[in-house]
Amino acid sequence: MTDKVLQLALAQLNFKVGDLTANLAKIGEALDEVSQSAPECELVIFPELALTGYPLEDLVNRPDFFLELESIEPALLKLSKKRPFLLGRPVHHAGAIYNAVSLYAAGEIISTYHKQNLPNYGVFDEKRTFTAGVEPTVVEFKGHRLGLLICEDLWSADIVQATAKAGADILIGVNASPYEMNKLGQRVGILAARCVENTLPLVYVNAIGGQDELVFDGNSMVLDKKGELCVRLPHCEESIEYVVFQGKNVLTKLLPNEQSLYAATYQALVLAVKDYVNKNGFPGVILGLSGGIDSALVLALAVDALGAERVHAVMMPYTYTAEISVEDAKKQAVDMGCAFDSIPIQPMVRSFMGGLEPLFANTGRDTTEENIQARCRGIILMALSNKYGKLLLTTGNKSELAVGYCTLYGDMCGGFAPIKDVPKTLVYELSRYRNSLGPAIPERVIERPPSAELAPDQKDEDSLPPYDILDAIIDGYAEQDMSISELVAQGYPEESVCRVIQLIERNEYKRQQGAVGPKITKRNFGKDRRIPITHGYLQTILASYKAGQ
Amino acid sequence: MTDKVLQLALAQLNFKVGDLTANLAKIGEALDEVSQSAPECELVIFPELALTGYPLEDLVNRPDFFLELESIEPALLKLSKKRPFLLGRPVHHAGAIYNAVSLYAAGEIISTYHKQNLPNYGVFDEKRTFTAGVEPTVVEFKGHRLGLLICEDLWSADIVQATAKAGADILIGVNASPYEMNKLGQRVGILAARCVENTLPLVYVNAIGGQDELVFDGNSMVLDKKGELCVRLPHCEESIEYVVFQGKNVLTKLLPNEQSLYAATYQALVLAVKDYVNKNGFPGVILGLSGGIDSALVLALAVDALGAERVHAVMMPYTYTAEISVEDAKKQAVDMGCAFDSIPIQPMVRSFMGGLEPLFANTGRDTTEENIQARCRGIILMALSNKYGKLLLTTGNKSELAVGYCTLYGDMCGGFAPIKDVPKTLVYELSRYRNSLGPAIPERVIERPPSAELAPDQKDEDSLPPYDILDAIIDGYAEQDMSISELVAQGYPEESVCRVIQLIERNEYKRQQGAVGPKITKRNFGKDRRIPITHGYLQTILASYKAGQ
Repeated sequence: MTDKVLQLALAQLNFKVGDLTANLAKIGEALDEVSQSAPECELVIFPELALTGYPLEDLVNRPDFFLELESIEPALLKLSKKRPFLLGRPVHHAGAIYNAVSLYAAGEIISTYHKQNLPNYGVFDEKRTFTAGVEPTVVEFKGHRLGLLICEDLWSADIVQATAKAGADILIGVNASPYEMNKLGQRVGILAARCVENTLPLVYVNAIGGQDELVFDGNSMVLDKKGELCVRLPHCEESIEYVVFQGKNVLTKLLPNEQSLYAATYQALVLAVKDYVNKNGFPGVILGLSGGIDSALVLALAVDALGAERVHAVMMPYTYTAEISVEDAKKQAVDMGCAFDSIPIQPMVRSFMGGLEPLFANTGRDTTEENIQARCRGIILMALSNKYGKLLLTTGNKSELAVGYCTLYGDMCGGFAPIKDVPKTLVYELSRYRNSLGPAIPERVIERPPSAELAPDQKDEDSLPPYDILDAIIDGYAEQDMSISELVAQGYPEESVCRVIQLIERNEYKRQQGAVGPKITKRNFGKDRRIPITHGYLQTILASYKAGQ
Repeated sequence: MTDKVLQLALAQLNFKVGDLTANLAKIGEALDEVSQSAPECELVIFPELALTGYPLEDLVNRPDFFLELESIEPALLKLSKKRPFLLGRPVHHAGAIYNAVSLYAAGEIISTYHKQNLPNYGVFDEKRTFTAGVEPTVVEFKGHRLGLLICEDLWSADIVQATAKAGADILIGVNASPYEMNKLGQRVGILAARCVENTLPLVYVNAIGGQDELVFDGNSMVLDKKGELCVRLPHCEESIEYVVFQGKNVLTKLLPNEQSLYAATYQALVLAVKDYVNKNGFPGVILGLSGGIDSALVLALAVDALGAERVHAVMMPYTYTAEISVEDAKKQAVDMGCAFDSIPIQPMVRSFMGGLEPLFANTGRDTTEENIQARCRGIILMALSNKYGKLLLTTGNKSELAVGYCTLYGDMCGGFAPIKDVPKTLVYELSRYRNSLGPAIPERVIERPPSAELAPDQKDEDSLPPYDILDAIIDGYAEQDMSISELVAQGYPEESVCRVIQLIERNEYKRQQGAVGPKITKRNFGKDRRIPITHGYLQTILASYKAGQ
């Protein structure tokens, strides 16, 4: 066993899916920065699939993708003459594609490890594109034996143990692990268990950055052989930090201040907005500001992500819009310093009601008329988005998306949905958190009872259970797969439970046409939850529940 | 080896995902029908996961789903006293979930086989929800040895051979295999190979029915031990047929007339529309009829699927709508006998242009104004859909969806997209096929050069390459993963290739918000092709191609 000193750099960086040129440049810049900041550093560690970004989805199945990868290989080998590095990348081997990590050093690839544990649940589809490796890999490096692992491998005690048995004295896991509330503690617990099980230290390097519905949050870590956390890198920020080992001992101590869950979540959402907008090359964003709390929170997120000068807020009042909504919307926009316009929608709504009159004769008012209002707003916002090239942010929250309390092609219009995975109760918490940093959302917006303002004196709670109950039922049914009986046994009113799950199932078609937005909960309405539109399961469980009463 | 006679029933039926009550009833009715039609029949074979429908997606992970399955088990056992049957169903076993088929007979489950080859490519995600079985299953039944297999198992020579080695004298595969053009021949080829490899006959029972983006096409088959096709059931229709074996010999001969590819595809689309509408409980459909060929074909499909009385066509002319468009739309609606209305959109478009004027000062006309027209039409159609509960069919084809030649929240509005996987060149072929059955689509609609009619004298070919070239490039790039160089080498103009692939990649966000619609090609824009919205792959390949010139 060695007691040699080894200095590693943890390169927690933001790579872009498929942009090999930009990612190669970023790798080169990181190596340069290490040369300047820590010339004695012996190895730079990049995250999982850093070379290509993660997840590649079906792009990795394209033969031309591998031709591109081959063509930049000489540049990587050349970079490795500056300083050795561990780089996550997809590899082709014997007709199969692996999620791999390679040790590049002195112009050569010294070793390549193939990920063994391929996640194929939740948001992950790795078995669709990758073949699983079958062997541990321990590589000799400057007198140390580095056990290479990739992300989900660390979740498997057996895989890590096999790597330890193969002779590793330091475990190194490269990751692309997306943010989820309360996952950081879970990660630390799992990683500590792996250290303790094998009496080995562990280096955990995670990516950061927004990628469609995922936000990689960083929080890269080093734990010692007793499972103690010694080093943690920042949340949702690029960072390169240096860690010194002596044999199996971690000599570095570097822990950030603890952060509240709301702060961490807010920052993840800001990063998601920033990266979606910038990685897709939009000059800025536009959003509809209603005077309600959802759009107010989205405006704050957008301004924090992009700066006020890239944000355009538009109020679109109608007959049912309260005067205080107009006041509060304008106040927030002015306070935050972003562009603000108001376009009343009476003429547009009137034109549709006129054109439809012959076909609506002898019918009563219903949600059709409410949807027309929402859709006129959608057309205006999309016209502005089309004319000026700005991305339209849609402002719906998870609770309304769950039960369909939103208008498809209306307020659901938009390319990115920053709070689509934020339940309404959490919208309030995040708004209060944001205001604790400095004035952003007018207090009255937070205190007013929520209303869609699509009918006279409308309140959300006229149509829906109170949000604390609604959110709990949504979480129980859609995120925890609880049955009707279990939810009723937990004390939620039977009528509300049955109604909410009906709404959830009946609105799958809307969600499947909704914009993408960042996952922050255990199960989002996106890749995490894949349910058919056409199915009779709802009838089955309702009939069965009623028969059991 | 037995030379006993065995009569089997192939029950090619249409089950509904998750509707256990309806599916149980259908199983009972089928058994009754067999009792009446063929009392000497010894075994009824249902398709893959017939009890629950296919695909269940994440529904199968719900614990309450298995409670429901348990609760109907006594009814299934009771039915098996009438007559033995083979039934596909999900099973829980030792903490894992399997895609299984069970032999029910005389009130007992005699044997259960777990699918070994789980498809996890294209539209399939079986590794997400199921665990793979590891053993062949051969069950003794009335002197015969039946080798049980499920769908993708038949694609594996090894799995089938292991089943043969375990002593099977008849191979029985239950399936939920979706329609795809030219797949029938491929299926016959694979099944014949399995028969020849093992000198065994094979019974192939497929489901029928539409399920979101899939259409199960039936075409159940029996091949003899030489791989000769002896029996084939109808395409896209429910059917129960009887097949007599003597030992390993097939005594029944029952082959339908050959059908053209266009006929088969048209029928698959009709079934898709019919099942989406009826399984989701819509009273009927509404669609925008423009006088162009896409909406004309969708109208014909809708009328053939549902009857004219359930179809409402709406023309929404604007300044740029040609007089012959109005005439042809009305003529088709009248000819087909469906309800028809016309609502001019000038007042609506004008109201938006007025409201936006202050914000559009000093800007020129661009696609923004075209999109406003399309979105006004979307609002009208959705208002009618909301008011009368009818499903809005969206009429876009695969070519325009590929390159984004369609308006999000405009003509893309709708719950189901019958021709979203039909390239424009195939739209013409299907229209001509439909007219060969009887007058449906006015000839002038087929003969006119296609136009979106969103600007004066607009033609599709002003903005896009001719459709034969466009469709070939889309097929090459998006369906066959060909590179730019390969497409150019095939003779497509470099400029068109580069332009089309840019359009394909830049419009992923639109497609991800598009309605679901039936898959008929090898790779649809749906579950078959999973590409990130945010990625830099386009820049990578364009730069690389240009550098290589």
